[in-house]
Amino acid sequence: MSHFLEELEELIKRLLEMAGLVESAVHESVLSLTERSESRAQRVLLDEARINQMEIEIDDQATGLLARYQPMATDLRLLTSIIKINNDLERMGDLAVNIVERSLSLIRQEPVKPLIDIPQMARLAESMVRRSLDAFVKRDADLARGVLLSDDTVDDLRDSIYQELIGFMQRDPSTITRALDLILVARNLERIADHATNIAEDVVFFVKGIDVRHHAETRGESAIGGPHR
Amino acid sequence: MSHFLEELEELIKRLLEMAGLVESAVHESVLSLTERSESRAQRVLLDEARINQMEIEIDDQATGLLARYQPMATDLRLLTSIIKINNDLERMGDLAVNIVERSLSLIRQEPVKPLIDIPQMARLAESMVRRSLDAFVKRDADLARGVLLSDDTVDDLRDSIYQELIGFMQRDPSTITRALDLILVARNLERIADHATNIAEDVVFFVKGIDVRHHAETRGESAIGGPHR
Repeated sequence: MSHFLEELEELIKRLLEMAGLVESAVHESVLSLTERSESRAQRVLLDEARINQMEIEIDDQATGLLARYQPMATDLRLLTSIIKINNDLERMGDLAVNIVERSLSLIRQEPVKPLIDIPQMARLAESMVRRSLDAFVKRDADLARGVLLSDDTVDDLRDSIYQELIGFMQRDPSTITRALDLILVARNLERIADHATNIAEDVVFFVKGIDVRHHAETRGESAIGGPHR
Repeated sequence: MSHFLEELEELIKRLLEMAGLVESAVHESVLSLTERSESRAQRVLLDEARINQMEIEIDDQATGLLARYQPMATDLRLLTSIIKINNDLERMGDLAVNIVERSLSLIRQEPVKPLIDIPQMARLAESMVRRSLDAFVKRDADLARGVLLSDDTVDDLRDSIYQELIGFMQRDPSTITRALDLILVARNLERIADHATNIAEDVVFFVKGIDVRHHAETRGESAIGGPHR
């Protein structure tokens, strides 16, 4: 095996290690809220520095490979995908930290309501992250396209979470700050799903050479706070 | 001048053209809210497709340059910076669209309050975008570092906007959905400032070869919903 392929394999291994850390941070951040667990929250905060450090290392390694081997065609597309996926993963790690911050505030207060929709949204977002990374590993464009389809369901869940929480705020103003915290948790989950969508788009581009970015317009955006791509 | 340098100059020109479109979208999105102008809002929505298209073209052009000329050292760093800045600009365009969506909902209702803090936050975010791009054009690391310093002020403004709007919600529940819309506008402005910070960090890295990412921890994050980097 050439030096380039060896180093590329090493790089992919590190990227997947980073992905494992980020997936676990997202999972723990939601559990910290549903189980009202401060220790889970602290674990996410501790892992943040490691995730940030890994992003820089992977970025350096990928840029170094570009510079030293000047790969062409598929290898070049693979390397630029790795750089982008690395960036998306790091931002997901940040979003997990945001969730933990809301969670630490929420678990010190009475619950506004039993949490059903948020865990459901979290499961979907986590499954999108897992499937987008699976699609990357298996170079499977169909699997990646499946992730893009889940995005509408995430938007629907977010809308129903917003509506329900706004109802709570209106009926009982003492719930306002807590309901707002839960809305922000939902928004962070939505952004995690968006990053999974970005990864899936990169995979389709990498595998097929077809650019599927910016087709959100045709997938039916919702009225409440839906981010455009 | 070599073909490479010619094409690189062309690419930078396109990136700055894209930056101009995005800056104008951000500016118009806030004016649509402060001037209650539906036509300004529509302009932002119309420009979105063009911004998205430009992002794809710039990305393709930059990747093509990498592949065809295999630049080393400074040129390689410049090209990877361009790819990242392009991505940050496109996301700012999305955030301007998010602001416009909130604005279109808000301008059809009675104002909750005179808008003072949000325009102030918008001015600061816009100035950060402008200065980060200036720093890129002039390859001026000091100018870029100045942008990083503004980030704390943005966080302070966001906190005071949140607190004031939560107060409105608590005193008069009929303001809840409108106040929530304004909170989401502030959050989008904060994320625009974050992208300007990313650009400034890229400029420092490009000019000095020093990585200043992930030093947010030392710049004093605030308690309310502050995204980590």
